[in-house]
Amino acid sequence: MAILVLGGAGYIGSHTVYELIDAGRDVVVADNLLTGFRAAVHPKARFYELDIRDRKAVDALFEKETIEGVIHFAASSQVGESMVDPLKYYDNNLWGTTVLLQSMVAHGVDKIVFSSTAATYGEPERVPILESDRTEPTNCYGETKLAMERMMSWTSRAHGLRYVALRYFNACGAHPSGAIGEAHDPETHLIPLILQVPNGEREKISVFGDDYPTRDGTCVRDYIHVTDLAQAHILALDYLLAGGENNVFNLGNGVGFTVKEVIDVTRKVTGHPIPAEICPRRAGDPAQLVASSEKAKTVLGWKPQYAELDTIVSSAWTWHKNHPNGYQG
Amino acid sequence: MAILVLGGAGYIGSHTVYELIDAGRDVVVADNLLTGFRAAVHPKARFYELDIRDRKAVDALFEKETIEGVIHFAASSQVGESMVDPLKYYDNNLWGTTVLLQSMVAHGVDKIVFSSTAATYGEPERVPILESDRTEPTNCYGETKLAMERMMSWTSRAHGLRYVALRYFNACGAHPSGAIGEAHDPETHLIPLILQVPNGEREKISVFGDDYPTRDGTCVRDYIHVTDLAQAHILALDYLLAGGENNVFNLGNGVGFTVKEVIDVTRKVTGHPIPAEICPRRAGDPAQLVASSEKAKTVLGWKPQYAELDTIVSSAWTWHKNHPNGYQG
Repeated sequence: MAILVLGGAGYIGSHTVYELIDAGRDVVVADNLLTGFRAAVHPKARFYELDIRDRKAVDALFEKETIEGVIHFAASSQVGESMVDPLKYYDNNLWGTTVLLQSMVAHGVDKIVFSSTAATYGEPERVPILESDRTEPTNCYGETKLAMERMMSWTSRAHGLRYVALRYFNACGAHPSGAIGEAHDPETHLIPLILQVPNGEREKISVFGDDYPTRDGTCVRDYIHVTDLAQAHILALDYLLAGGENNVFNLGNGVGFTVKEVIDVTRKVTGHPIPAEICPRRAGDPAQLVASSEKAKTVLGWKPQYAELDTIVSSAWTWHKNHPNGYQG
Repeated sequence: MAILVLGGAGYIGSHTVYELIDAGRDVVVADNLLTGFRAAVHPKARFYELDIRDRKAVDALFEKETIEGVIHFAASSQVGESMVDPLKYYDNNLWGTTVLLQSMVAHGVDKIVFSSTAATYGEPERVPILESDRTEPTNCYGETKLAMERMMSWTSRAHGLRYVALRYFNACGAHPSGAIGEAHDPETHLIPLILQVPNGEREKISVFGDDYPTRDGTCVRDYIHVTDLAQAHILALDYLLAGGENNVFNLGNGVGFTVKEVIDVTRKVTGHPIPAEICPRRAGDPAQLVASSEKAKTVLGWKPQYAELDTIVSSAWTWHKNHPNGYQG
């Protein structure tokens, strides 16, 4: 019995596959390679290049492989892009998941863990955010992920599907081995953007607003090491395999780091001065976005191993220093 | 410049096309004929047999015709079916509308009126329901219609689409001419089901619960004559053509009728005793579902013409008496 990882050539997907293989699991990866990289797929995983919207290809995979559970990362995930091209998100995320679930139901595969997002909450009522807090997405990416959660719920009632949705903000860091790491085009994540300065690809880092009501005036965000996220996905799948009910879990660090703190730690880790420029606030940036993951710790037994900011940044620096062009040569 | 009516061979769609043609408008109808009938399409409308999920066919239509606005009825609409086959609703309703909007954006068609549903509200906080009340669908049909509203909103922000969503409960009645009427398979609507008794197709009508806190113990529902619904869709399109902003309107009768009242009026109209059997309540049936349409009356100038229950039932009876097999011969 194998685990199917959809989007397993992407950032979080590829790290999850490494953890699964390290734990001795049999792994099948499917990815359309539009944003993922063939080189990021663990050599011991069986790889299928396919788009989950291609029903025939998905059916063929389920007929060839014996899948005990699915971990689903195959989605578009750029907030900014989702606002200028929302229908791409309905197409790739919501329609893609519709086809996937149709095929799973037809083939009797009834367990799925998928990456939702803390963007389902929108502007938070309070921090840290709890799973029971109001969900009112303020971007179309979060909207389609919340709609995916709802789709899973209806499919569960009709067909007995069991699912876990994992909501988190900023994945960061890289595999401790240095073999795989983060590679987005365009890059929009803070830590890789900062690291472009010591890597000679960018002169300075922009800080959008230093007059927020936070401990140093810059925005507080929730950062989770990608290996900790990978472990959470595996724990969630094992929870379903052990008979666990449908559930939704935040994966957060509960405290968060300010933009200035991230820059300071990066200066320390890289030994580079990293000039920073204070710019005006951006529209729609809340002061603090931090999620509580007490529920994941209690129910799934999740124990983040890489919660320290310097560990996170060090692992990212090892990757980016050695792979300034990501997987491209 | 023509009006495109999607799902124009269906019940409400075909009546809307008749009203448009009577008003001298140029009308294009598209329908996949899975639940609609070719015979229901007004002979003066240009007809395209196509599925809105077929991007090439939708593109070809927009390239051939000059469309000033779209009225969109093309959706699956059976509440019960949506609970046992939810993915059909994500596929037909949500994915279908994704493809439609992609094609509209590509062809610069930027005005759409569509039939949402009062099922977007779920269990109402109060009756009559206002447009600003909480939306929390309790069936997957309502879920996909609410998701369609949200999709329109994001598409509006990104691409300038303008839309009106019309939320209503029970369409009923038939065209005053007797040329077209209601024909569903399976039939789930109350008035056609009652009329099956005098038509000799059913021995008695079942009443699910007579101990609700209503004026006679049976459920109160909102019934709107299909011609009044058709007029509201046309008024909404004219509102958009005159520059009106995105909007959501209930179409309700504000008071509602009990199941017993509908049966009593049908006895009077048909002269048939129509035996009724009291059965246990069905799960999930709220006591009262009635929407306020003050906003539609004020903003759109909507004036229902067929609000009396005997007028509604008489028009339905004329149709069903003369077409016991609907459009099938």
